[in-house]
Amino acid sequence: MNELKSDLSVVGKRIPKLDASLKAMGRAEYIQDIKLPGMVYGKILYSSYAHANIIKIDTSKAVALPGVHAVLTGEDIPGKMKMGFYKDNPPIKKGKVCSFRDEVAAVAAKSPEIARKALSLIEIEYEELEGIFDPEKAMKKDSPLVHEKNKTNILKLPWKLHYGDVEKAGEKAAFTVEDRFSTTWVTHCCLGTSGAVALFDANDNLTIYTNTQIPSLAQKDFLEALKAMGLENKRARVIKPVIGGGFGSKLDTYAYEHIAILLAHKCRKPVKLTFDRQEEFKATSTRQPAIIDIRQGCDKNGKLLFRDIKMILDNGAYTSWGATTPSVMMMPVTSLYRVKNVRYSAKCVYTNNTYSQAMRGYGNPQATFAIESSMDMLAEKAGIDPIEFRRINRNHPGDVTPQKFKITTCGLDLCLDTVEKELKENNIKQKGVGIGIASLIHVGGGARIYKSDGCGAILKMDDYGKVDIFTGGTDMGQGLDNITAQIVAEELGLFAEDINVVHTDTDVCPWDVGAHASRSTFVAGNAALGAAKKVKEKLLEFGSKILDADPGDLVLRDRLIFVPGDNEKKMAIDKLLRKAHFSPGGTMLMADFFYDPDNENLGKEFKGNMSMTYTFGVHGVRVKVDVETGKVEVLEYVAAHDVGRAINPLLLEGQVYGGVVMGLGYALTEEVVHKKGKNMNANFRDYKLFTAKDAIKIKAPVLETPDKDGPFGAKGIGEPGCVPTAPAIANAIYDAVGVRIYDLPITPEKVLAALKEKNN
Amino acid sequence: MNELKSDLSVVGKRIPKLDASLKAMGRAEYIQDIKLPGMVYGKILYSSYAHANIIKIDTSKAVALPGVHAVLTGEDIPGKMKMGFYKDNPPIKKGKVCSFRDEVAAVAAKSPEIARKALSLIEIEYEELEGIFDPEKAMKKDSPLVHEKNKTNILKLPWKLHYGDVEKAGEKAAFTVEDRFSTTWVTHCCLGTSGAVALFDANDNLTIYTNTQIPSLAQKDFLEALKAMGLENKRARVIKPVIGGGFGSKLDTYAYEHIAILLAHKCRKPVKLTFDRQEEFKATSTRQPAIIDIRQGCDKNGKLLFRDIKMILDNGAYTSWGATTPSVMMMPVTSLYRVKNVRYSAKCVYTNNTYSQAMRGYGNPQATFAIESSMDMLAEKAGIDPIEFRRINRNHPGDVTPQKFKITTCGLDLCLDTVEKELKENNIKQKGVGIGIASLIHVGGGARIYKSDGCGAILKMDDYGKVDIFTGGTDMGQGLDNITAQIVAEELGLFAEDINVVHTDTDVCPWDVGAHASRSTFVAGNAALGAAKKVKEKLLEFGSKILDADPGDLVLRDRLIFVPGDNEKKMAIDKLLRKAHFSPGGTMLMADFFYDPDNENLGKEFKGNMSMTYTFGVHGVRVKVDVETGKVEVLEYVAAHDVGRAINPLLLEGQVYGGVVMGLGYALTEEVVHKKGKNMNANFRDYKLFTAKDAIKIKAPVLETPDKDGPFGAKGIGEPGCVPTAPAIANAIYDAVGVRIYDLPITPEKVLAALKEKNN
Repeated sequence: MNELKSDLSVVGKRIPKLDASLKAMGRAEYIQDIKLPGMVYGKILYSSYAHANIIKIDTSKAVALPGVHAVLTGEDIPGKMKMGFYKDNPPIKKGKVCSFRDEVAAVAAKSPEIARKALSLIEIEYEELEGIFDPEKAMKKDSPLVHEKNKTNILKLPWKLHYGDVEKAGEKAAFTVEDRFSTTWVTHCCLGTSGAVALFDANDNLTIYTNTQIPSLAQKDFLEALKAMGLENKRARVIKPVIGGGFGSKLDTYAYEHIAILLAHKCRKPVKLTFDRQEEFKATSTRQPAIIDIRQGCDKNGKLLFRDIKMILDNGAYTSWGATTPSVMMMPVTSLYRVKNVRYSAKCVYTNNTYSQAMRGYGNPQATFAIESSMDMLAEKAGIDPIEFRRINRNHPGDVTPQKFKITTCGLDLCLDTVEKELKENNIKQKGVGIGIASLIHVGGGARIYKSDGCGAILKMDDYGKVDIFTGGTDMGQGLDNITAQIVAEELGLFAEDINVVHTDTDVCPWDVGAHASRSTFVAGNAALGAAKKVKEKLLEFGSKILDADPGDLVLRDRLIFVPGDNEKKMAIDKLLRKAHFSPGGTMLMADFFYDPDNENLGKEFKGNMSMTYTFGVHGVRVKVDVETGKVEVLEYVAAHDVGRAINPLLLEGQVYGGVVMGLGYALTEEVVHKKGKNMNANFRDYKLFTAKDAIKIKAPVLETPDKDGPFGAKGIGEPGCVPTAPAIANAIYDAVGVRIYDLPITPEKVLAALKEKNN
Repeated sequence: MNELKSDLSVVGKRIPKLDASLKAMGRAEYIQDIKLPGMVYGKILYSSYAHANIIKIDTSKAVALPGVHAVLTGEDIPGKMKMGFYKDNPPIKKGKVCSFRDEVAAVAAKSPEIARKALSLIEIEYEELEGIFDPEKAMKKDSPLVHEKNKTNILKLPWKLHYGDVEKAGEKAAFTVEDRFSTTWVTHCCLGTSGAVALFDANDNLTIYTNTQIPSLAQKDFLEALKAMGLENKRARVIKPVIGGGFGSKLDTYAYEHIAILLAHKCRKPVKLTFDRQEEFKATSTRQPAIIDIRQGCDKNGKLLFRDIKMILDNGAYTSWGATTPSVMMMPVTSLYRVKNVRYSAKCVYTNNTYSQAMRGYGNPQATFAIESSMDMLAEKAGIDPIEFRRINRNHPGDVTPQKFKITTCGLDLCLDTVEKELKENNIKQKGVGIGIASLIHVGGGARIYKSDGCGAILKMDDYGKVDIFTGGTDMGQGLDNITAQIVAEELGLFAEDINVVHTDTDVCPWDVGAHASRSTFVAGNAALGAAKKVKEKLLEFGSKILDADPGDLVLRDRLIFVPGDNEKKMAIDKLLRKAHFSPGGTMLMADFFYDPDNENLGKEFKGNMSMTYTFGVHGVRVKVDVETGKVEVLEYVAAHDVGRAINPLLLEGQVYGGVVMGLGYALTEEVVHKKGKNMNANFRDYKLFTAKDAIKIKAPVLETPDKDGPFGAKGIGEPGCVPTAPAIANAIYDAVGVRIYDLPITPEKVLAALKEKNN
């Protein structure tokens, strides 16, 4: 860590997660722990086919089963109740199913056992249709159609840009590489499975407990659902229990939530609908699989001249946020390294597979796998050391990228130096051992993908020097509560434990666009800081009167307000608060703040400074490849990031460790195996997640380049950890044994096959 | 109702309680409904004697009982953990018990049954002491002492004033009356019995669910309790479940709360401690019994010249807020009618009886019983019609009373006229039938009895034209939620159902001194109004830009913002909010406000304008007395109040009806019977509460004299309904059959005895 001189007393401290003890003691309340009086249990019946017409549904036996409170089929779903980015997904399907994940019926019963039994009593007659599971084939004219009314499987989406002139630049290039890369389905594997509890009050106002990263947008979805149900002008209150992992999986609302709402309204009882692990694997969304054709070229000095990328994305049967990941892929495509001529297009294609969703990095890992693999290949062709090649092309502070991203702070050089030093120290060339690196750019100061990128905060102080802050920001395990508490404590001269962060309830917490795009530290942090600054001003103003001092001379620190060096002018902050409260015209200190960053929506040509700042990083890895088995062992891993300022280095490192391990799984082991649309490995035995036992020692140097707009200079660091891991490993494998794997995950089988091919 | 011309659209509307359907459906969560994971159950063992030394306590058998998690005796209570106004009351007693209500041990067990069984296994050896149960006897030198260290049973309390010169005025009086009146114990009879659930987090921060009218002051008490337990700098979160009636009973913290805290800390589990009905009767506090000697005199024209009152109050064994009721009694003593020469003194005396607490009216009913009975007697002596006599002496707007109360609005004349008209209409003199009236003055604009009389409010609006407001004010069934919602809705041009009032949680709600002194409509109403005004200003400012109109021309009403008469300049408020949110530099509308009225603490001589305004009222009653049985039948009841402005006439009338019925019980039937300190009627069969079947038709004319400081002109009306009921009835009985009853309740036995004595 490049130690910054700092007179900060709380920001920068390694304070463990504030709810750690609660979790360790088993007293955190997850969705599974919610029990309400009169609550009944919902279950969903899924399709038996990847693609089929529903001829007939007979629910009569289920309805007749004692203990069953409600049974729903597609016929019960209001026509306007549709989910997802394209509103092409009703919570229960009618007429036709388009994937094994399609919901065909749901029940509520007084116990989960009865609900399960009721599902088994529902009789459905299907007429199977030919399915389509390959997006390239699905693009062909004679392909079966997933949604007939569209007349094509290709989604009408605008993901296409061309800046500069790629063709002309291509002609000038001294060296050019062109390859195809591909990635498959992986999933979030949240340890807390999905679920919701919905209930209505007597006036048809909804309360829903749900795992969500987007309480305010979920509220909007649910209000629209209520409207579709004919319930106008009602309230929808969203309460988040403790969330056992998000990683983007909770950036949309889902069928289980809408079904819980419909069942609750039908029953007039609270309905709880939670997923078991198998359901979690089968009925939640994945990272979007991508087929990526990339061409890059540089001049004879290694200067990057152009980048040309075409992608085909398997959209699955419905359109959630996965279909919008190309908008984020554009970021590394246009802005990772200096490159003036860029062309990019992406096609999303309906298939009868599962549909995709946001997942940590939101397209960035897929794109960066292709770009950074290709970069190494181009460096080799140009005869330049891959680290040096990146140094030549690195981004600089002050750059404006072709997409009009304004690079303010940029520690990419620092990261390259640090990783190089770590990797090359004691680097004795061994057989089968190699090193590889890959860089990343990611939004680090919000990301305006909605009409507002804002977050609100309300803060109140009590008579005892304690603070309650209600924030729109969501802590889903990543530690936003700590970040918020440390920022507020720093600003008000208190300790982190003096700050109580409330982020669980839309009745209490102001609006926020959601916990995505690594934006929470930056945006929610600035919202909290803004509210704290307003209260601080009042504290200083009142303190200046009481202590007879200039407000500018007063310091808040260690629960004290004082003029440094003047022992007479010092008072405990809680005492000052009581004086403010119990004086004539007394008041309590409260403040609100809404922070919406001054960033831009991408315009027509996908240009605009979508984030206030950008986070950079370089990952370096040393691997050993067993040429007999193809197995890749990670010997050393360095993940250096330019984070602006580490509000809490302990949690920041945790984010990096977690990200890297997720990236390692993406690189080496993880895959949701689908056969003709059917999930074949819906459990942790067959889905090869990196576990604690597989974890390796990761070095996570934190490089600080305080950002002028970040709270205390901080940038976002939630996602980067998993972005460049796969290409760094692919590059290291190539360095070790001279074979390149183009398709994730890099399994021993693929390595072995490549070695065989190379040796032939 | 004197119909005020009003262009208000929500204030003044008869909107049923917002939580009525929730309560009717049985879905309101009372303390009894709270269930937390791992929760165990607490029970308290009470003294077997009114006054005794504890020789020995053996808890070994209770400790050994399977399922018992903790046993506490007085030995486990930290020395500094004391309750009440004088901090003379530890939650479990050690060494000596001073009343049957004294707590001597407590247990927590996995079921209430085991807890009860455990109590029965605790063996205590007592040495009985002589008890003292009569406050007059307790004042004598040779009386047994309740607290030996005090060396007297008379509390050191300052309740004494003398304004003008009562002796000199007495010499000038043409007519004088002098009598003794007395009142006994009555109790609140909340339908929701008392209880608390306490739990600690891993860092020893406390959360307590409890029925309280004083969340902020209770929080302070609990923080002091934690400190006494050695837990410094912790947080105490107070959550109020739905409260089933307060009436002043919840204006202090009690042993059951402190015991729940101690048990929870010992167990490391949530501990629930709730009272059954018998315990509620025996172990909660009563209205303070009083012996009142009153002397009043007037000149020959009926002008009141002096009032001289001495009181003896039975304090019971410990000192809670009951001991401070004389400070409120001073209000009618000095300020009900114009009277320049006033003398007042009150002595509170320890006895081995139960101790008293605040109860609706807080001393005012006791004092007004004596004053208004005496007023009738003086009127008779002076030969003046009792209504006319009051008219002569009535308060006027602009008066400053001897205690320096500033009468701003005063509708006492209107009330007298209205009641006279009602009573004298169709008044045919019948044998055994008579009419009586009595007036009241009460604080109607807060009551500064603490360092702050303030209340905070935080308000936020969402994208849908809905409001969440967090208020310090407490709804305990009286309807403050409606009042708050109607005030905010009126100010912001919304409907009452658009406003969600959150008042349940000190983590969320700003500070408030408590729901007492009929202050909530005025103070919490002004706090809500203040926050609404700030948001309104922002709405108008933004609206003026969008609609191209002068902010001063814009009106908010019916969910619309518009320039009246200009159909072009009109927009739905929710749409405007979305525009404000989703514009560049967008924001959500939020505001906070802390309202602390400009009233005064009573000074050294008990002078000071303790309330911003005062509420007046006159009750008139027609009774029929059965001379054979002594039974009094109420034929007609008129309760006219000057309320400033009725925010919600439906709820206001409800307050009056409820108050009058409580007053009727006080007048005629209610008494907690104590024999040598022992409660003899701890159930609803023997404690004669007026029930629905006993209720009579009450007319409640609402007289509006909008007050300049009240929210939309409103004054407080929570307590007045029960203040003058007893003297109105006593006066009517005298009018009917010529006997005067000096001692409450006016039972048939007392009436019969008086009739007998009169006839002899």
